Amino acid sequence: MPARNNVTAAVLIIGNEILSGRTQDVNLNWLAKELTELGIRLREARVVSDVEGEIVAAVNELRSRYDYVFTTGGIGPTHDDITSASIAKAFGLPWVRHPDAVKILEAQYEPGQLNEARLRMATMPEGAELVDNPVSGAPGYRIGNVFVLAGVPSIMRAMFDNARGRLRGGPPVLSQTVSTYLGEGTIAKPLGELQDRHPELDIGSYPFFRGGRFGTSLVIRGTDRTQIAAAAEALRETIRSLGDTPVEGEPAT
Amino acid sequence: MPARNNVTAAVLIIGNEILSGRTQDVNLNWLAKELTELGIRLREARVVSDVEGEIVAAVNELRSRYDYVFTTGGIGPTHDDITSASIAKAFGLPWVRHPDAVKILEAQYEPGQLNEARLRMATMPEGAELVDNPVSGAPGYRIGNVFVLAGVPSIMRAMFDNARGRLRGGPPVLSQTVSTYLGEGTIAKPLGELQDRHPELDIGSYPFFRGGRFGTSLVIRGTDRTQIAAAAEALRETIRSLGDTPVEGEPAT
Repeated sequence: MPARNNVTAAVLIIGNEILSGRTQDVNLNWLAKELTELGIRLREARVVSDVEGEIVAAVNELRSRYDYVFTTGGIGPTHDDITSASIAKAFGLPWVRHPDAVKILEAQYEPGQLNEARLRMATMPEGAELVDNPVSGAPGYRIGNVFVLAGVPSIMRAMFDNARGRLRGGPPVLSQTVSTYLGEGTIAKPLGELQDRHPELDIGSYPFFRGGRFGTSLVIRGTDRTQIAAAAEALRETIRSLGDTPVEGEPAT
Repeated sequence: MPARNNVTAAVLIIGNEILSGRTQDVNLNWLAKELTELGIRLREARVVSDVEGEIVAAVNELRSRYDYVFTTGGIGPTHDDITSASIAKAFGLPWVRHPDAVKILEAQYEPGQLNEARLRMATMPEGAELVDNPVSGAPGYRIGNVFVLAGVPSIMRAMFDNARGRLRGGPPVLSQTVSTYLGEGTIAKPLGELQDRHPELDIGSYPFFRGGRFGTSLVIRGTDRTQIAAAAEALRETIRSLGDTPVEGEPAT
């Protein structure tokens, strides 16, 4: 993929346990930070249940719309682990044993332990390229622009670290935060005007309550350090003109 | 809405801060648990950025597909708070001042403080029905089958509590967990057979690593207590037949 300004990605979280509330997802936040550092803009995330039709539809929609798709969850050995077969179906590819993945599992299990259920973890869309799993053995994979990763956070992170070298980002997104104890509604008008003057930047406003005080954190994001610094300085001026003292970064708790 | 067996919902999380990794979402998990208790099945969740076209498209897709949609985020007073206007657009409705919402804000702010930016928080699709916000004043609302809630967790929760009486669920989903120190791959085959014998139940398998040991938590979910108990007993038998002792619930850390 050629380097360009706006490389995009989506995350697809697959698993009934997220939608039932059993499990608090932490993979999205971790992936979001990593992708941001790589200069890849995470544009959308979805959570779907372990239902083939829903996985197929989401994968096909997201892979056509974004440069990269990262799926998490549903690649274990049990009946509810249907991600891998669903991805094959989404791509219209046969779901076949990957010889190198079989070798990894053969090296890991005692003779007789590598049963049919476990061999499903070595079954992938034809042409899949393995993503190593140093934590628990059974690998993830890449097919087309889709990276198929585990749902267990420690395994997902290790797999992503192994996939990192295959990702091409754009210029990294930088951010600077200026905080104030003014309310959002007090600063809203000049803040909107500042955003209008800097269409190349993304200025977000986030209310907080910390150390017994209400305030607003203003986050300026973009790829040009000079533009960000100029907007931050304008923001400090605005805060001072409204009678408050700007705080650099997020206020201490 | 008539009571029936399968009342469904989607959650739409709106905000660049989730997709940039600045903020770890905790609203989805909380809503998932609450909806499950109400007998409403959360079938899908999405995270989109503060971009009108993306919000409109997601709202329209989700509201046509599920009985309820809950949005979180983007209803404050600043330029990046575009959820409410986008919802109006999705419904093809004018975005107008809601007189009762204006009264709430008038009662809250000192004279002169209720500026145009803050009045945006009282601007809603025509016909919106308010959802009170006891935490910070500015209300959420319901329009059609869409509940528009705040992104700040404490405010979102208070709003949901106030919306709860307007929701009609199906029979509550019950769950029972049996754990084992057998690996997923060891129990996968009989587990899949058990799922096949109980198509009315949803049996999930979740590996864990706790107290220095690997194991598997098996979660049986459904609406019929007797069926769940029968499946749990079959599961205990299976675990015993494989040489392990079943543990009720999640194992202690």
